[in-house]
Amino acid sequence: MSTESADGLNEPPFDVLGKLCPSRPVLEHVTGRWGSLVLIALREGPTRFNELRRRVDGVSEKMLAQSLHALERDGFIERAVHSTIPPRVEYTLTELGASTTEKLWEFVQMLEDAMPQVLHSQAEYDGAAAA
Amino acid sequence: MSTESADGLNEPPFDVLGKLCPSRPVLEHVTGRWGSLVLIALREGPTRFNELRRRVDGVSEKMLAQSLHALERDGFIERAVHSTIPPRVEYTLTELGASTTEKLWEFVQMLEDAMPQVLHSQAEYDGAAAA
Repeated sequence: MSTESADGLNEPPFDVLGKLCPSRPVLEHVTGRWGSLVLIALREGPTRFNELRRRVDGVSEKMLAQSLHALERDGFIERAVHSTIPPRVEYTLTELGASTTEKLWEFVQMLEDAMPQVLHSQAEYDGAAAA
Repeated sequence: MSTESADGLNEPPFDVLGKLCPSRPVLEHVTGRWGSLVLIALREGPTRFNELRRRVDGVSEKMLAQSLHALERDGFIERAVHSTIPPRVEYTLTELGASTTEKLWEFVQMLEDAMPQVLHSQAEYDGAAAA
């Protein structure tokens, strides 16, 4: 894969700590409020919009559409239109999306496992603040 | 570690896809716009506020303070006040914060490595949209 481009944006090293690095918005797409949950919900296979809305509990139609759009543009998901009547639209993880999501999923599982410790810490912090 | 609590919030399984699961705000603290970058910047060791502001390029004083507060309350970082004159305040990853950050760092590195592919995908998508 070429790492050269006319605008120079396509040259490593990429660094999310840099304000203008193009990796920063991409990090936001895959970890942002809804992007991470959409990716995780898509682990189960090709999914239609309304089914995704149910799985990602609490997401609005508008935010889901925005997240899907950003993730499709970045190449993490594919939107396939099947020519049935009525047409069936499904979203699927690409190869890049699947590997990214597996890494994200490991991270999320680790965080879910740490939740008892986190809740304990929150309670202690709030107790100390109230004291 | 106990997984019981009077309010029932401390009982597994935790699931970030559930709207009311307490793991969801915690995921947002560690992956949100600034939280992830703060954790990554703290990989280098104990750091003072102004040095963090420099490392996390583009963060405002207010957003950095909010991120640090949420991460401290969740138990990912510690705030230590050293009794020098003037007092020196440093932020450090806790053990939980360090293991969480290593997993996050793996994810971010994978994403940075995928950036040429992502930029290629974005250019193709924008080209197709313009055509």
